[in-house]
Amino acid sequence: MDAISVIRAKRDDQALTDAQIDWVIDAYTRGEVADEQMSALAMAILLNGMSRAEIARWTAAMIASGERMDFSPLSRPTADKHSTGGVGDKITLPLAPLVAACGAAVPQLSGRGLGHTGGTLDKLESIPGWRATLSNPRMMEILADSGAVICAAGDGLAPADKKLYALRDVTGTVESIPLIASSIMSKKIAEGTGSLVLDVKVGSGAFMKNLDDARELAATMVALGTDHGVRTTALLTDMSTPLGLTAGNALEVRESLHVLAGGGPKDVVELTLALAREMLDAAGLSDADPEKALADGSAMDQWRRMISAQGGDPDAPLPLAREQHMVPAPTDGTLTRLDAYAVGLAAWRLGAGRARKEDPVQAGAGVELHAKPGEEVVEGQPLLTLHTDTPERFDTALAALEGAYEVGTPTARPSSIVLDRVD
Amino acid sequence: MDAISVIRAKRDDQALTDAQIDWVIDAYTRGEVADEQMSALAMAILLNGMSRAEIARWTAAMIASGERMDFSPLSRPTADKHSTGGVGDKITLPLAPLVAACGAAVPQLSGRGLGHTGGTLDKLESIPGWRATLSNPRMMEILADSGAVICAAGDGLAPADKKLYALRDVTGTVESIPLIASSIMSKKIAEGTGSLVLDVKVGSGAFMKNLDDARELAATMVALGTDHGVRTTALLTDMSTPLGLTAGNALEVRESLHVLAGGGPKDVVELTLALAREMLDAAGLSDADPEKALADGSAMDQWRRMISAQGGDPDAPLPLAREQHMVPAPTDGTLTRLDAYAVGLAAWRLGAGRARKEDPVQAGAGVELHAKPGEEVVEGQPLLTLHTDTPERFDTALAALEGAYEVGTPTARPSSIVLDRVD
Repeated sequence: MDAISVIRAKRDDQALTDAQIDWVIDAYTRGEVADEQMSALAMAILLNGMSRAEIARWTAAMIASGERMDFSPLSRPTADKHSTGGVGDKITLPLAPLVAACGAAVPQLSGRGLGHTGGTLDKLESIPGWRATLSNPRMMEILADSGAVICAAGDGLAPADKKLYALRDVTGTVESIPLIASSIMSKKIAEGTGSLVLDVKVGSGAFMKNLDDARELAATMVALGTDHGVRTTALLTDMSTPLGLTAGNALEVRESLHVLAGGGPKDVVELTLALAREMLDAAGLSDADPEKALADGSAMDQWRRMISAQGGDPDAPLPLAREQHMVPAPTDGTLTRLDAYAVGLAAWRLGAGRARKEDPVQAGAGVELHAKPGEEVVEGQPLLTLHTDTPERFDTALAALEGAYEVGTPTARPSSIVLDRVD
Repeated sequence: MDAISVIRAKRDDQALTDAQIDWVIDAYTRGEVADEQMSALAMAILLNGMSRAEIARWTAAMIASGERMDFSPLSRPTADKHSTGGVGDKITLPLAPLVAACGAAVPQLSGRGLGHTGGTLDKLESIPGWRATLSNPRMMEILADSGAVICAAGDGLAPADKKLYALRDVTGTVESIPLIASSIMSKKIAEGTGSLVLDVKVGSGAFMKNLDDARELAATMVALGTDHGVRTTALLTDMSTPLGLTAGNALEVRESLHVLAGGGPKDVVELTLALAREMLDAAGLSDADPEKALADGSAMDQWRRMISAQGGDPDAPLPLAREQHMVPAPTDGTLTRLDAYAVGLAAWRLGAGRARKEDPVQAGAGVELHAKPGEEVVEGQPLLTLHTDTPERFDTALAALEGAYEVGTPTARPSSIVLDRVD
């Protein structure tokens, strides 16, 4: 077995054999297959595709490259959620404590942001004292005590995926359904959750720009989860405009607190509840009432326990950026479009995200929305507020927002943020 | 400009702009674009292709990555030949002195073998004392004195191609007409020859397995040469069976000496003369008579001067392998097939070639043929003799030859080794 013959097979549009897949993933993890060989293979996979059987084996090989966690000692059923990434997507923050408040254990292993989509860990790190890294025993302890934990995935989970993910990011090989599906599912299956809900984003701010691609990705991931004994469903949700009214780290924590306090933007609440119901159904807790858990404060109590357990002070004031810049509505009318990708890019340029994984992020930076598509605005009223500690970045952020919004006569909008469901 | 946007453009089947091509070649040469990025781009080029305009710019950018030689101080016209590589292809050895004997200057910058095709420099290094490396001034001096020089290309010529060639070799991205054509032509144009004849091999022992692909490669290279002011023509020649009766380093030198002495196998003589006439025509020396130069010993005199000028002893006995193994004809009949690739692979396994570029080669190793397709054989007569210093390799060489030859009733064979001509 050698790398060149595996690359050639996929290049020539052949299905890879089980033995080829097992070997290439193992050899890449060990460093025997070089980065330049794996990137050529990734490009061949992106352009020539993989069959369902190949994707299943590829995923299994990435799981086998590392350890698997086991939550069976917990007395509660486990439920996890994964989003394919969008702008303003802070849903994990209210969702994990909400689902825990309803009786499930939520082991939410999360990542950091790269590019225009933010990372859950970056958001939580804007809370003074909060730490993302936990040992496996400490994670189990918190889960047993308070039911929800959001932390960084340990290095032992699917190390092949960690290496491949970083490689794809710099070689233009991210946008491949087989590679995206196997990357997400290898981590989630290795993590050991009993059930999983996938939030597959569709639209300008997502990897999947159209519903057909998103449906294919969702179906691929649901099949992978099911084959590995994880009860898996997927919601396809709208990412043509940002989720909620904020994109940025501390800004999104603040908005999440509004949701946990029983308020918050309509779309965030709707999606949080929809995902909570999916998770609770999959965990066998269909009788739970997540709406009540938001209203009666039990989800907020859970949040406070979860934040405290990782060193965070839930009562400390959240950081604010040093400088603000207001973007006014250009005219009277209905806001008909506010592009998710452009807002994500602006937030990133203001300092909320990072260009390279070793870069720091600004806790306070980001974009605040004062209206959502479908709402009426008056000329000169605040449409957006940009936040940053480094005001020299306002110009590039404003450049990202050029042509990103329109005020005019109303057009039809999707009535619900949830576009479809796959199980 | 960044690597990912260039990779994405080609991945999404767009034509690369001149600025993208210039930047990516320059940045790769400087190490700013990483190997894993260039290999992803190479795979995207292999699968999505490049237009003639893109190939021309890619070639020009690789030429611009290094120095260009200038043979205009020479009093004679320059002519060069390049073969795309085949089994038993020792043609450069008799051809260079032959064309020099007819009045042209032949600056033949050559390479080493990798994989199943041998390298001209490896063959000449089996001559005691002969050295492949020359400074540019010494090369000019030998060309002015004796008219022909075969040596290693200096590191200054098309360094981008040197890097990319080594990368493609390990990433399954060799078999791309745009990448092959630009690699060959960037070196040949940078070398500064006034005219060039391309020997494009077709068949099992060549990169191009069918005539259509070979014709496209030839037409691409002829256009690139012509655009850069190099008079360029191409012959498409048969590589379904080895050229001549030997594949291996010293074995091929010995066969070349037979040709220079006025003998040698019919196909080697025919191809040497056909290429010599092309080179002489392109160099404006149509009146020269290469057949006479072989017959009257002037080509052999030129060989002796050429070998001596690089430290070689033309009278020293050539090395012989320590062990031989004879493969008999399995039955009476006509040899109908003797596969070039299998013979090349066997010679390589016997020690004539190398698996990695730092490996040594055995001077005496290789395969000797006692019959060519179309010839009658008698059961038990020698069909092949395998040569090696390491007899433990006979088994793997014999495995390569399994099913590689057939003795039966005669079928039609191409009457000439030259299949087509492109100018």
